[in-house]
Amino acid sequence: MTARVEFWFEFASTYSYAAAFAVEERARERGVRVVWRSFLLAPIFGAQGWRDSPFNIYPAKGAYMWRDLARVCARQGLPLKKPTVFPRSGLLAARIACRHGEASWCPEFVRRIYAANFQDDEDISSSEVVGRIVESLSLKSAEILADAQTQPGKDALRAQTEQAVKLGIFGAPTFAVDGEIFWGGDRLGEALDWAIGERKVAQL
Amino acid sequence: MTARVEFWFEFASTYSYAAAFAVEERARERGVRVVWRSFLLAPIFGAQGWRDSPFNIYPAKGAYMWRDLARVCARQGLPLKKPTVFPRSGLLAARIACRHGEASWCPEFVRRIYAANFQDDEDISSSEVVGRIVESLSLKSAEILADAQTQPGKDALRAQTEQAVKLGIFGAPTFAVDGEIFWGGDRLGEALDWAIGERKVAQL
Repeated sequence: MTARVEFWFEFASTYSYAAAFAVEERARERGVRVVWRSFLLAPIFGAQGWRDSPFNIYPAKGAYMWRDLARVCARQGLPLKKPTVFPRSGLLAARIACRHGEASWCPEFVRRIYAANFQDDEDISSSEVVGRIVESLSLKSAEILADAQTQPGKDALRAQTEQAVKLGIFGAPTFAVDGEIFWGGDRLGEALDWAIGERKVAQL
Repeated sequence: MTARVEFWFEFASTYSYAAAFAVEERARERGVRVVWRSFLLAPIFGAQGWRDSPFNIYPAKGAYMWRDLARVCARQGLPLKKPTVFPRSGLLAARIACRHGEASWCPEFVRRIYAANFQDDEDISSSEVVGRIVESLSLKSAEILADAQTQPGKDALRAQTEQAVKLGIFGAPTFAVDGEIFWGGDRLGEALDWAIGERKVAQL
């Protein structure tokens, strides 16, 4: 059985953007398959009393994050433009990514949504922008967008977000391997080690 | 001039514990000198409305941290025992580390305080435990403890904590190089790159 790592991402998450562009190549080098798992942070943050991104609530943390992200992106050779609106809702895109998580086009769809937000400063909460990106993959946007907004489409993302909570996920990106979670893009290496059986943990 | 990295640590910080045992060797390999800088998180957390460790306020984050720390320590070959009291106040020890930051014994003092808290579950807030650790370094504990509690001793740590805030520090450990900050033990490599002149940052 091929080793696998689940990549849990939220479209508003800045570090998820950088990770979305790194995860497949890094995993391939280690012989690990990536499973794409969209979810929403808003209900998780809301449950702990946050009504906005912690990067907006805590200014020092926010200022640091943008600077750090600029360094992370430079190391990856990834463009970055600070969006004029932050955070943007990725609800529609997340529903689509959830409904089609196993589709071959899903990873590229996810990266194009991220690029729209963090490279081109486009409003990824709008169905026009999301629809255009779906079309750019030679898919029928009307069908895919309509399906995402049906009750089963909504329920699927809600269930996946509940699964994230059950896994203990509280931020994005998070990598999960057999129920073991690794928070932050900088933990990808550790997650891949875990996936291929290199597992070390001290007894508490 | 030798490249240098400032290591900003707080004695209650779990990830600072692991970093304190890694920073000198990693820095030496890169030809970088470590400057030890104790500070307090309580006033910084307090200013953003937290009266306890965020790992206690947010249970999912806390559960994750202990598991992640156990993995980090296992990778470093570092023992870890979850303290029965968390967080413990490192006020006295932080004042001593601040007053003697340039002393040759300071790094070892810092590591022994961390080991007392995170390996031996000792009460590092007590002057008895701190005094015993000072004595274990063949130093006169009465003098050093008394000095730390004078007004200049208190003011020194207060000023150093204010300097941390000015640098934009909001958590521990943080590495600082020429005013550039790197938060988290996992950012040590990036901080050392920065210290030796490998500096990449995307234009926002």
